[in-house]
Amino acid sequence: MPTLVLLRHGQSQWNLENRFTGWWDVGLTEQGIAEATDAGRRMAAAGLDFDIGFTSVQSRAIRTLNLALEAMGRLWLPVVKDWHLNERHYGGLTGLNKAETAAQHGEDQVLIWRRSFDVPPPPLVPGGAFDLARDRRYDGIAVPTAESLKDTIERVLPYYQSTIVPQLQAGKRVIIAAHGNSLRALVKHLSNVSDADILHEEIPTGQPMVYDLADDLTAVSRRYL
Amino acid sequence: MPTLVLLRHGQSQWNLENRFTGWWDVGLTEQGIAEATDAGRRMAAAGLDFDIGFTSVQSRAIRTLNLALEAMGRLWLPVVKDWHLNERHYGGLTGLNKAETAAQHGEDQVLIWRRSFDVPPPPLVPGGAFDLARDRRYDGIAVPTAESLKDTIERVLPYYQSTIVPQLQAGKRVIIAAHGNSLRALVKHLSNVSDADILHEEIPTGQPMVYDLADDLTAVSRRYL
Repeated sequence: MPTLVLLRHGQSQWNLENRFTGWWDVGLTEQGIAEATDAGRRMAAAGLDFDIGFTSVQSRAIRTLNLALEAMGRLWLPVVKDWHLNERHYGGLTGLNKAETAAQHGEDQVLIWRRSFDVPPPPLVPGGAFDLARDRRYDGIAVPTAESLKDTIERVLPYYQSTIVPQLQAGKRVIIAAHGNSLRALVKHLSNVSDADILHEEIPTGQPMVYDLADDLTAVSRRYL
Repeated sequence: MPTLVLLRHGQSQWNLENRFTGWWDVGLTEQGIAEATDAGRRMAAAGLDFDIGFTSVQSRAIRTLNLALEAMGRLWLPVVKDWHLNERHYGGLTGLNKAETAAQHGEDQVLIWRRSFDVPPPPLVPGGAFDLARDRRYDGIAVPTAESLKDTIERVLPYYQSTIVPQLQAGKRVIIAAHGNSLRALVKHLSNVSDADILHEEIPTGQPMVYDLADDLTAVSRRYL
Protein backbone atom coordinates (compact mmCIF):
# COMPACT_ATOMS: atom_id res chain seq x y z
CA MET A 1 0.00 0.00 0.00
CA PRO A 2 1.66 3.28 -1.08
CA THR A 3 2.30 5.65 1.81
CA LEU A 4 2.38 9.42 1.50
CA VAL A 5 3.05 11.78 4.38
CA LEU A 6 2.29 15.48 4.21
CA LEU A 7 4.14 17.72 6.67
CA ARG A 8 3.49 21.42 7.08
CA HIS A 9 6.64 23.30 8.11
CA GLY A 10 7.19 24.04 11.79
CA GLN A 11 6.20 27.41 13.23
CA SER A 12 7.85 30.28 11.37
CA GLN A 13 8.67 33.70 12.70
CA TRP A 14 5.72 35.17 10.81
CA ASN A 15 3.33 32.43 11.96
CA LEU A 16 4.25 33.66 15.43
CA GLU A 17 3.74 37.32 14.46
CA ASN A 18 0.50 36.50 12.61
CA ARG A 19 1.74 38.07 9.36
CA PHE A 20 0.88 37.02 5.81
CA THR A 21 3.99 35.25 4.54
CA GLY A 22 3.33 33.62 1.19
CA TRP A 23 6.51 33.37 -0.86
CA TRP A 24 8.60 35.48 1.51
CA ASP A 25 11.41 33.37 2.92
CA VAL A 26 10.92 33.48 6.68
CA GLY A 27 12.88 31.22 9.05
CA LEU A 28 11.65 28.79 11.68
CA THR A 29 11.30 29.80 15.32
CA GLU A 30 12.87 27.69 18.06
CA GLN A 31 9.43 26.13 18.53
CA GLY A 32 9.29 25.41 14.79
CA ILE A 33 12.67 23.68 14.92
CA ALA A 34 11.48 21.57 17.86
CA GLU A 35 8.25 20.70 16.03
CA ALA A 36 10.17 19.52 12.97
CA THR A 37 12.57 17.38 14.98
CA ASP A 38 9.72 15.96 17.02
CA ALA A 39 7.81 15.12 13.84
CA GLY A 40 10.80 13.08 12.66
CA ARG A 41 11.09 11.28 15.98
CA ARG A 42 7.41 10.40 15.99
CA MET A 43 7.48 9.16 12.41
CA ALA A 44 10.45 6.91 13.21
CA ALA A 45 8.76 5.66 16.39
CA ALA A 46 5.64 4.84 14.36
CA GLY A 47 7.72 2.74 11.98
CA LEU A 48 7.30 5.12 9.06
CA ASP A 49 10.07 5.27 6.54
CA PHE A 50 10.64 6.98 3.19
CA ASP A 51 12.48 6.63 -0.07
CA ILE A 52 12.30 10.24 -1.27
CA GLY A 53 11.29 13.68 -0.01
CA PHE A 54 9.79 16.64 -1.82
CA THR A 55 9.70 20.23 -0.61
CA SER A 56 9.37 23.80 -1.81
CA VAL A 57 12.22 26.25 -2.39
CA GLN A 58 11.33 28.07 0.83
CA SER A 59 13.71 27.69 3.76
CA ARG A 60 11.08 26.94 6.41
CA ALA A 61 9.86 23.87 4.52
CA ILE A 62 13.34 22.69 3.50
CA ARG A 63 14.64 23.00 7.05
CA THR A 64 11.59 21.22 8.42
CA LEU A 65 12.22 18.30 6.06
CA ASN A 66 15.94 18.23 6.86
CA LEU A 67 15.32 18.31 10.61
CA ALA A 68 12.68 15.57 10.43
CA LEU A 69 14.84 13.35 8.21
CA GLU A 70 17.83 13.90 10.47
CA ALA A 71 15.78 12.84 13.50
CA MET A 72 14.83 9.68 11.57
CA GLY A 73 18.43 8.87 10.58
CA ARG A 74 17.40 9.55 6.97
CA LEU A 75 19.25 12.75 6.10
CA TRP A 76 20.85 10.83 3.23
CA LEU A 77 17.56 10.37 1.36
CA PRO A 78 17.16 12.20 -1.94
CA VAL A 79 15.23 15.46 -1.60
CA VAL A 80 13.68 17.37 -4.49
CA LYS A 81 13.06 21.10 -4.01
CA ASP A 82 10.57 22.76 -6.36
CA TRP A 83 8.77 26.13 -6.38
CA HIS A 84 5.50 24.42 -7.38
CA LEU A 85 5.19 23.34 -3.74
CA ASN A 86 5.62 26.91 -2.42
CA GLU A 87 3.03 28.54 -0.20
CA ARG A 88 0.16 30.48 -1.80
CA HIS A 89 1.48 33.88 -2.92
CA TYR A 90 -0.27 36.47 -0.76
CA GLY A 91 0.45 39.39 -3.09
CA GLY A 92 0.10 42.83 -1.55
CA LEU A 93 -0.76 41.31 1.83
CA THR A 94 2.75 39.86 2.17
CA GLY A 95 4.40 41.10 5.34
CA LEU A 96 1.22 42.59 6.82
CA ASN A 97 0.03 41.64 10.26
CA LYS A 98 -3.49 40.26 10.06
CA ALA A 99 -4.82 42.91 12.47
CA GLU A 100 -3.15 45.70 10.47
CA THR A 101 -4.69 44.29 7.32
CA ALA A 102 -8.13 44.34 8.87
CA ALA A 103 -7.62 47.94 10.01
CA GLN A 104 -6.44 48.92 6.52
CA HIS A 105 -8.89 47.00 4.35
CA GLY A 106 -11.74 46.19 6.72
CA GLU A 107 -12.56 42.87 8.39
CA ASP A 108 -15.03 41.87 5.70
CA GLN A 109 -12.55 42.31 2.87
CA VAL A 110 -9.89 40.34 4.73
CA LEU A 111 -12.36 37.52 5.29
CA ILE A 112 -13.10 37.47 1.55
CA TRP A 113 -9.38 37.20 0.74
CA ARG A 114 -8.73 34.56 3.35
CA ARG A 115 -11.88 32.56 2.92
CA SER A 116 -12.70 32.68 -0.76
CA PHE A 117 -11.59 29.98 -3.11
CA ASP A 118 -10.89 32.00 -6.22
CA VAL A 119 -10.44 35.66 -5.23
CA PRO A 120 -6.77 36.61 -5.13
CA PRO A 121 -5.53 39.27 -2.71
CA PRO A 122 -4.38 42.60 -4.16
CA PRO A 123 -1.24 42.21 -6.27
CA LEU A 124 2.22 42.80 -4.87
CA VAL A 125 3.55 46.20 -5.89
CA PRO A 126 6.52 45.59 -8.23
CA GLY A 127 9.81 46.73 -6.76
CA GLY A 128 8.41 46.77 -3.23
CA ALA A 129 10.09 45.27 -0.20
CA PHE A 130 8.67 41.79 -0.80
CA ASP A 131 9.10 41.60 -4.57
CA LEU A 132 10.84 38.33 -5.41
CA ALA A 133 10.83 38.67 -9.19
CA ARG A 134 14.60 39.17 -9.16
CA ASP A 135 15.39 36.50 -6.58
CA ARG A 136 17.79 34.08 -8.28
CA ARG A 137 15.83 31.03 -7.17
CA TYR A 138 12.98 32.12 -9.46
CA ASP A 139 15.08 32.69 -12.58
CA GLY A 140 13.01 31.70 -15.58
CA ILE A 141 9.78 31.48 -13.57
CA ALA A 142 6.89 33.92 -13.90
CA VAL A 143 6.60 34.83 -10.22
CA PRO A 144 2.92 35.51 -9.51
CA THR A 145 1.91 38.90 -8.12
CA ALA A 146 -0.86 37.24 -6.04
CA GLU A 147 -2.66 33.90 -5.93
CA SER A 148 -6.08 32.69 -4.92
CA LEU A 149 -6.23 29.24 -3.36
CA LYS A 150 -7.50 28.06 -6.76
CA ASP A 151 -4.39 29.47 -8.44
CA THR A 152 -2.22 27.64 -5.93
CA ILE A 153 -4.01 24.36 -6.52
CA GLU A 154 -3.61 24.82 -10.27
CA ARG A 155 0.17 24.84 -9.98
CA VAL A 156 0.52 22.24 -7.19
CA LEU A 157 -1.60 19.46 -8.70
CA PRO A 158 0.06 19.26 -12.13
CA TYR A 159 3.42 19.03 -10.35
CA TYR A 160 2.09 16.30 -8.06
CA GLN A 161 0.73 14.38 -11.05
CA SER A 162 3.82 14.72 -13.22
CA THR A 163 6.57 14.29 -10.63
CA ILE A 164 5.33 12.77 -7.37
CA VAL A 165 2.72 10.30 -8.66
CA PRO A 166 5.31 8.36 -10.71
CA GLN A 167 7.35 7.87 -7.54
CA LEU A 168 4.31 6.53 -5.68
CA GLN A 169 3.44 4.30 -8.63
CA ALA A 170 6.97 2.91 -8.52
CA GLY A 171 6.36 1.89 -4.90
CA LYS A 172 8.38 4.69 -3.32
CA ARG A 173 7.39 5.96 0.11
CA VAL A 174 7.07 9.72 -0.16
CA ILE A 175 7.14 12.64 2.28
CA ILE A 176 6.17 16.13 1.16
CA ALA A 177 7.19 18.99 3.45
CA ALA A 178 5.40 22.12 2.35
CA HIS A 179 2.96 24.86 3.35
CA GLY A 180 -0.59 25.35 4.59
CA ASN A 181 -2.05 26.08 1.17
CA SER A 182 0.13 23.91 -1.06
CA LEU A 183 -0.79 21.02 1.22
CA ARG A 184 -4.47 22.02 1.07
CA ALA A 185 -4.19 21.52 -2.68
CA LEU A 186 -3.06 17.94 -2.12
CA VAL A 187 -5.63 17.23 0.61
CA LYS A 188 -8.39 18.60 -1.63
CA HIS A 189 -7.34 16.23 -4.39
CA LEU A 190 -6.61 13.15 -2.28
CA SER A 191 -9.59 13.41 0.06
CA ASN A 192 -11.96 14.84 -2.55
CA VAL A 193 -12.80 17.96 -0.51
CA SER A 194 -15.16 20.57 -1.99
CA ASP A 195 -14.04 24.09 -2.91
CA ALA A 196 -15.99 25.45 0.07
CA ASP A 197 -14.77 22.91 2.61
CA ILE A 198 -11.09 23.07 1.73
CA LEU A 199 -11.00 26.67 3.02
CA HIS A 200 -11.77 25.37 6.49
CA GLU A 201 -9.14 22.64 6.45
CA GLU A 202 -6.57 23.93 8.94
CA ILE A 203 -3.34 21.98 8.72
CA PRO A 204 -1.29 22.43 11.91
CA THR A 205 2.45 23.10 11.76
CA GLY A 206 4.80 20.18 12.24
CA GLN A 207 2.12 17.45 12.45
CA PRO A 208 2.68 14.59 9.98
CA MET A 209 -0.50 13.75 8.07
CA VAL A 210 -0.30 10.11 6.98
CA TYR A 211 -2.18 8.97 3.90
CA ASP A 212 -2.72 5.32 3.16
CA LEU A 213 -3.37 5.08 -0.55
CA ALA A 214 -4.95 2.42 -2.69
CA ASP A 215 -3.04 1.13 -5.68
CA ASP A 216 -4.79 3.71 -7.88
CA LEU A 217 -3.50 6.35 -5.42
CA THR A 218 -6.90 7.33 -4.09
CA ALA A 219 -6.97 7.81 -0.32
CA VAL A 220 -7.98 4.83 1.81
CA SER A 221 -7.50 6.77 5.04
CA ARG A 222 -5.69 9.70 6.51
CA ARG A 223 -4.70 10.52 10.04
CA TYR A 224 -2.40 12.83 11.94
CA LEU A 225 0.41 11.05 13.65
CA MET B 1 35.77 30.57 -15.72
CA PRO B 2 34.20 27.52 -14.04
CA THR B 3 34.35 27.63 -10.26
CA LEU B 4 34.50 24.58 -8.04
CA VAL B 5 34.63 24.72 -4.26
CA LEU B 6 35.63 21.72 -2.14
CA LEU B 7 34.52 21.75 1.48
CA ARG B 8 35.51 19.15 4.03
CA HIS B 9 32.82 18.64 6.67
CA GLY B 10 33.15 20.51 9.97
CA GLN B 11 34.65 18.80 12.99
CA SER B 12 32.87 15.53 13.82
CA GLN B 13 32.62 13.86 17.20
CA TRP B 14 35.21 11.30 16.13
CA ASN B 15 37.56 13.91 14.70
CA LEU B 16 37.50 15.31 18.21
CA GLU B 17 38.08 11.86 19.76
CA ASN B 18 40.77 11.02 17.20
CA ARG B 19 39.01 7.84 16.10
CA PHE B 20 39.01 6.28 12.63
CA THR B 21 35.57 7.05 11.20
CA GLY B 22 35.40 6.05 7.55
CA TRP B 23 31.84 5.20 6.56
CA TRP B 24 30.46 5.28 10.10
CA ASP B 25 27.87 8.03 10.37
CA VAL B 26 29.14 10.32 13.09
CA GLY B 27 27.56 13.72 13.79
CA LEU B 28 29.13 17.18 13.89
CA THR B 29 30.31 18.73 17.14
CA GLU B 30 29.18 22.22 18.12
CA GLN B 31 32.50 23.42 16.74
CA GLY B 32 31.81 21.55 13.50
CA ILE B 33 28.41 23.22 13.18
CA ALA B 34 30.02 26.61 13.73
CA GLU B 35 32.71 25.85 11.14
CA ALA B 36 30.10 24.93 8.54
CA THR B 37 28.03 28.04 9.14
CA ASP B 38 31.13 30.21 9.13
CA ALA B 39 32.26 28.64 5.84
CA GLY B 40 28.93 29.68 4.29
CA ARG B 41 29.21 33.21 5.62
CA ARG B 42 32.74 33.59 4.29
CA MET B 43 31.81 32.23 0.88
CA ALA B 44 28.91 34.68 0.64
CA ALA B 45 31.13 37.55 1.82
CA ALA B 46 33.68 36.61 -0.85
CA GLY B 47 30.98 36.83 -3.52
CA LEU B 48 30.96 33.12 -4.22
CA ASP B 49 27.74 31.60 -5.40
CA PHE B 50 26.62 28.19 -6.63
CA ASP B 51 24.12 26.48 -8.87
CA ILE B 52 24.32 22.96 -7.46
CA GLY B 53 25.85 21.08 -4.53
CA PHE B 54 27.14 17.53 -4.24
CA THR B 55 27.75 15.61 -1.07
CA SER B 56 28.10 12.07 0.29
CA VAL B 57 25.39 10.05 2.05
CA GLN B 58 27.07 10.70 5.39
CA SER B 59 25.35 13.07 7.81
CA ARG B 60 28.41 15.12 8.71
CA ALA B 61 28.97 16.15 5.08
CA ILE B 62 25.27 16.65 4.29
CA ARG B 63 24.77 18.82 7.38
CA THR B 64 27.90 20.81 6.59
CA LEU B 65 26.56 21.56 3.12
CA ASN B 66 23.09 22.41 4.43
CA LEU B 67 24.49 24.73 7.11
CA ALA B 68 26.82 26.48 4.65
CA LEU B 69 24.07 26.91 2.05
CA GLU B 70 21.68 28.19 4.68
CA ALA B 71 24.23 30.79 5.79
CA MET B 72 24.50 31.88 2.14
CA GLY B 73 20.71 32.11 1.65
CA ARG B 74 21.01 29.19 -0.77
CA LEU B 75 19.28 26.35 1.04
CA TRP B 76 16.97 26.09 -1.98
CA LEU B 77 19.76 24.97 -4.34
CA PRO B 78 19.59 21.40 -5.67
CA VAL B 79 21.79 19.02 -3.71
CA VAL B 80 22.85 15.57 -4.92
CA LYS B 81 23.84 12.99 -2.30
CA ASP B 82 25.89 10.02 -3.46
CA TRP B 83 27.91 7.32 -1.70
CA HIS B 84 30.74 7.70 -4.22
CA LEU B 85 31.73 10.84 -2.30
CA ASN B 86 31.87 9.02 1.05
CA GLU B 87 34.99 8.99 3.20
CA ARG B 88 37.60 6.28 2.67
CA HIS B 89 36.34 3.07 4.31
CA TYR B 90 38.71 2.36 7.19
CA GLY B 91 37.73 -1.31 7.50
CA GLY B 92 38.68 -2.95 10.80
CA LEU B 93 40.10 0.31 12.12
CA THR B 94 36.63 1.91 12.18
CA GLY B 95 35.80 3.14 15.65
CA LEU B 96 39.32 2.72 17.03
CA ASN B 97 41.12 5.56 18.68
CA LYS B 98 44.41 6.19 16.92
CA ALA B 99 46.45 5.61 20.10
CA GLU B 100 44.59 2.34 20.79
CA THR B 101 45.31 1.25 17.25
CA ALA B 102 49.01 1.91 17.69
CA ALA B 103 49.03 -0.05 20.95
CA GLN B 104 47.21 -2.93 19.27
CA HIS B 105 48.98 -3.06 15.91
CA GLY B 106 52.22 -1.15 16.52
CA GLU B 107 53.12 2.39 15.44
CA ASP B 108 54.87 1.22 12.30
CA GLN B 109 51.89 -0.75 11.04
CA VAL B 110 49.55 2.16 11.68
CA LEU B 111 51.84 4.48 9.75
CA ILE B 112 51.76 2.05 6.82
CA TRP B 113 47.96 2.02 6.84
CA ARG B 114 47.67 5.77 7.20
CA ARG B 115 50.51 6.72 4.92
CA SER B 116 50.54 4.23 2.10
CA PHE B 117 48.72 4.86 -1.12
CA ASP B 118 47.54 1.37 -1.95
CA VAL B 119 47.60 -0.74 1.22
CA PRO B 120 44.12 -1.10 2.71
CA PRO B 121 43.64 -1.45 6.46
CA PRO B 122 42.47 -4.84 7.79
CA PRO B 123 38.94 -5.65 6.66
CA LEU B 124 35.91 -4.92 8.78
CA VAL B 125 34.67 -8.05 10.52
CA PRO B 126 31.23 -8.86 9.05
CA GLY B 127 28.42 -8.53 11.56
CA GLY B 128 30.54 -6.38 13.87
CA ALA B 129 29.43 -3.13 15.50
CA PHE B 130 30.42 -1.01 12.50
CA ASP B 131 29.19 -3.26 9.69
CA LEU B 132 27.07 -1.18 7.31
CA ALA B 133 26.31 -3.87 4.77
CA ARG B 134 22.67 -3.96 5.92
CA ASP B 135 22.25 -0.18 6.25
CA ARG B 136 19.36 0.73 3.96
CA ARG B 137 21.25 3.61 2.39
CA TYR B 138 23.63 1.09 0.81
CA ASP B 139 20.97 -1.19 -0.67
CA GLY B 140 22.27 -2.52 -3.96
CA ILE B 141 25.81 -1.30 -3.31
CA ALA B 142 28.75 -3.62 -2.60
CA VAL B 143 29.89 -1.95 0.62
CA PRO B 144 33.69 -2.31 0.81
CA THR B 145 35.21 -4.05 3.81
CA ALA B 146 38.21 -1.68 3.68
CA GLU B 147 39.73 0.79 1.23
CA SER B 148 43.19 2.07 0.47
CA LEU B 149 43.40 5.69 -0.64
CA LYS B 150 43.83 4.30 -4.15
CA ASP B 151 40.55 2.39 -3.83
CA THR B 152 38.82 5.57 -2.70
CA ILE B 153 40.19 7.53 -5.64
CA GLU B 154 39.04 4.81 -8.01
CA ARG B 155 35.42 5.29 -6.98
CA VAL B 156 35.47 9.09 -6.54
CA LEU B 157 37.00 10.06 -9.89
CA PRO B 158 34.64 8.12 -12.18
CA TYR B 159 31.74 9.72 -10.32
CA TYR B 160 33.30 13.16 -10.68
CA GLN B 161 33.84 12.58 -14.40
CA SER B 162 30.40 11.18 -15.12
CA THR B 163 28.24 13.37 -12.92
CA ILE B 164 30.01 16.54 -11.78
CA VAL B 165 32.10 17.38 -14.86
CA PRO B 166 28.99 17.72 -17.08
CA GLN B 167 27.64 20.31 -14.62
CA LEU B 168 30.89 22.29 -14.76
CA GLN B 169 30.95 22.01 -18.55
CA ALA B 170 27.42 23.42 -18.62
CA GLY B 171 28.70 26.49 -16.75
CA LYS B 172 27.28 25.52 -13.37
CA ARG B 173 29.06 26.71 -10.24
CA VAL B 174 29.60 23.66 -8.08
CA ILE B 175 30.27 23.04 -4.38
CA ILE B 176 31.25 19.57 -3.15
CA ALA B 177 30.97 18.96 0.59
CA ALA B 178 32.72 15.72 1.42
CA HIS B 179 35.52 14.10 3.41
CA GLY B 180 39.29 14.23 3.87
CA ASN B 181 40.03 11.34 1.53
CA SER B 182 37.27 11.73 -1.04
CA LEU B 183 38.43 15.35 -1.43
CA ARG B 184 42.06 14.19 -1.67
CA ALA B 185 40.96 12.17 -4.69
CA LEU B 186 39.70 15.35 -6.34
CA VAL B 187 42.72 17.43 -5.35
CA LYS B 188 45.05 14.73 -6.69
CA HIS B 189 43.25 14.84 -10.02
CA LEU B 190 42.74 18.59 -10.30
CA SER B 191 46.16 19.66 -9.05
CA ASN B 192 48.04 16.71 -10.54
CA VAL B 193 49.53 15.60 -7.22
CA SER B 194 51.72 12.46 -7.12
CA ASP B 195 50.70 9.29 -5.29
CA ALA B 196 53.33 10.01 -2.64
CA ASP B 197 52.50 13.67 -2.15
CA ILE B 198 48.73 13.30 -1.90
CA LEU B 199 49.20 11.39 1.37
CA HIS B 200 50.57 14.55 2.93
CA GLU B 201 47.79 16.82 1.70
CA GLU B 202 45.92 17.65 4.90
CA ILE B 203 42.57 19.25 4.17
CA PRO B 204 41.27 21.13 7.22
CA THR B 205 37.65 20.80 8.34
CA GLY B 206 35.24 23.54 7.29
CA GLN B 207 37.67 25.53 5.13
CA PRO B 208 36.40 26.15 1.59
CA MET B 209 39.03 25.31 -1.04
CA VAL B 210 38.32 27.38 -4.13
CA TYR B 211 39.42 26.10 -7.53
CA ASP B 212 39.50 28.36 -10.55
CA LEU B 213 39.32 26.08 -13.55
CA ALA B 214 40.22 26.60 -17.19
CA ASP B 215 37.61 25.81 -19.82
CA ASP B 216 39.06 22.31 -20.12
CA LEU B 217 38.51 21.99 -16.33
CA THR B 218 42.20 21.82 -15.45
CA ALA B 219 43.08 23.88 -12.39
CA VAL B 220 44.32 27.43 -12.95
CA SER B 221 44.68 28.10 -9.24
CA ARG B 222 43.46 26.97 -5.87
CA ARG B 223 43.28 28.69 -2.54
CA TYR B 224 41.62 28.36 0.82
CA LEU B 225 39.11 31.05 1.51
